[in-house]
Amino acid sequence: MNKHEPGGRKLDLRNGRVELSHGSGGRAMARLIGEIFYAAFDNEWLAAGNDQAAFDIPAGRMAMTTDGYVVSPLFFPGGDIGKLAVHGTINDIAMAGARPLHMSASFIVEEGFPLAELKLIAESMGEASRAAGVAIVTGDTKVVERGKADGVFISTSCVGIIPAGLALSGDKARPGDVVLLSGSIGDHGVAVMSKRENLSFDTEVLSDTAALHELVAAMVETAGDAIRLMRDPTRGGVAATLNEIAHQSRVGVRIDEKAIPVAPQVAAACELLGLDPLHVANEGKLLAVVTCEAADALLAAMRAHPLGAQAARIGEIVADEHCFVQMTTAFGGGRIIDWLSGEQLPRIC
Amino acid sequence: MNKHEPGGRKLDLRNGRVELSHGSGGRAMARLIGEIFYAAFDNEWLAAGNDQAAFDIPAGRMAMTTDGYVVSPLFFPGGDIGKLAVHGTINDIAMAGARPLHMSASFIVEEGFPLAELKLIAESMGEASRAAGVAIVTGDTKVVERGKADGVFISTSCVGIIPAGLALSGDKARPGDVVLLSGSIGDHGVAVMSKRENLSFDTEVLSDTAALHELVAAMVETAGDAIRLMRDPTRGGVAATLNEIAHQSRVGVRIDEKAIPVAPQVAAACELLGLDPLHVANEGKLLAVVTCEAADALLAAMRAHPLGAQAARIGEIVADEHCFVQMTTAFGGGRIIDWLSGEQLPRIC
Repeated sequence: MNKHEPGGRKLDLRNGRVELSHGSGGRAMARLIGEIFYAAFDNEWLAAGNDQAAFDIPAGRMAMTTDGYVVSPLFFPGGDIGKLAVHGTINDIAMAGARPLHMSASFIVEEGFPLAELKLIAESMGEASRAAGVAIVTGDTKVVERGKADGVFISTSCVGIIPAGLALSGDKARPGDVVLLSGSIGDHGVAVMSKRENLSFDTEVLSDTAALHELVAAMVETAGDAIRLMRDPTRGGVAATLNEIAHQSRVGVRIDEKAIPVAPQVAAACELLGLDPLHVANEGKLLAVVTCEAADALLAAMRAHPLGAQAARIGEIVADEHCFVQMTTAFGGGRIIDWLSGEQLPRIC
Repeated sequence: MNKHEPGGRKLDLRNGRVELSHGSGGRAMARLIGEIFYAAFDNEWLAAGNDQAAFDIPAGRMAMTTDGYVVSPLFFPGGDIGKLAVHGTINDIAMAGARPLHMSASFIVEEGFPLAELKLIAESMGEASRAAGVAIVTGDTKVVERGKADGVFISTSCVGIIPAGLALSGDKARPGDVVLLSGSIGDHGVAVMSKRENLSFDTEVLSDTAALHELVAAMVETAGDAIRLMRDPTRGGVAATLNEIAHQSRVGVRIDEKAIPVAPQVAAACELLGLDPLHVANEGKLLAVVTCEAADALLAAMRAHPLGAQAARIGEIVADEHCFVQMTTAFGGGRIIDWLSGEQLPRIC
């Protein structure tokens, strides 16, 4: 985003639509970037108008991540694609125990997309990034012909600083470790699906989209490197994330269905939609694997934070050469929780 | 990209196609990422299989950038979308005078896209990233329904380290400074357009796609902070980039048409296609604004590097409150070089 004061006609932000010329590197693009993105993200790095942002960093260890967002519909109860793109990428940094520093955003927009909606999305991103204290310091915009994309796709990247001595990783779970979950599951996926399917419930289910880095900072302060790893159970839900951990660490996981918080309206919606909450995406929750000794203190620290108020101990790591994730059901039986092999919820994030 | 050894059936890399399940967070996605992206990018950070990459950084100043790639067609003479996505983002870091460190890649793939082509693109990216010494350390893959994207879109981000004492910026050009161009213009745009329009020429025009960071390192070593700024003239071409510089620095620019290298086959193709080479995208060229005193030494350093062999002094910065870019034509006349207000070449990068 390196456009400055190009002159020419102003955007019609009420009735206008994105045109191919808005992606061409010319005057129209300069207008689009200036009036929508600079205005919404509003920070000194973007204002410098260079093709890259420059900022000071301390010596140490950095975390870097990227995520693409193609959620459909773009606006859903509790959030929108912009908010998701800010929170999700911050969360991937936070899962390393890192403090997010700055982020970038790349937009791919379909010709004909309403400028008013693009502005809403940009404003939502600006708001989320300011609330999180993580500026969107650089970006890019491309426009493709009508019918060659679906509204808008966003890819965000984020860098962060890992506290000295911390090296969380998916391969560090050990038998005897405890699995903690920061709150109730399934909200995001159900919110998107209910909007997509045009369902309404007595109690509307809102996406749980949230930036988890402050919860994580509190957790790291309490338990430090007694935390083996953290993961946010997004696509594929808690089931996929636990299977990833099991495979990476070459261990088994046992969880207890009764211990896993699911809001009643989410459970009801899942039944209606034929979904298993364990497979449904979350956008403001985390799973932590922690040493047994540090588990109680860490759980207390999580519960003391608003985003971890419903945190629960949901299971433990066991030795298992098959790397199975097994669950004791609410009725006392047992079942294996597998990855889904097919597609449950396309374009959920 | 955090998928590990998921089991299940192998991908059919010869005849298979991308399915929605390849983006679902489950077993199929793990296969896709493992067999295509891990295999092609092949580095320790990806192999760690976490949602973010971690690496050591020195204290100092960092540059961060992102770019989306939607080029059509995906494969063109001299390159493909993957190579472009690696080179282009490295170049945006290099334009700060920075040494690129690591990059990320976010893929948005259309359902039905041939796995064989995705593999070719990934391999091209892996090759380009290894040649440049910049690893693709983290990534993400999303799949959207058939007809909701156009094959594959890629967004890459890159971070780099800015040498101490260097602070290039688009607002630093001053009257009396000299404008250098690293080589001939128009090759990339013409290569893509000729493929798109199915044109053939006696001498095929190849994209100039290249990573410029080593040329830049040589330039910084020679001229240091006598370099005011660098920009790679991509979308919108040299014309757009010079106008950006003029507006950011509140100066005018005068260039000399005779001094601007254009390959004969590019000039011929531009005539045929009705394009002005000044507005055509380049993907392996840079413009530098440098103090008059340092210009000769910098030009010599550029010419000593293979990617700057045809470097030329094309003009100078002048005082001009209207921020005009003016060109002395080959016939001795003068004309104002404006940004294009409309769209010349959609999806050129």
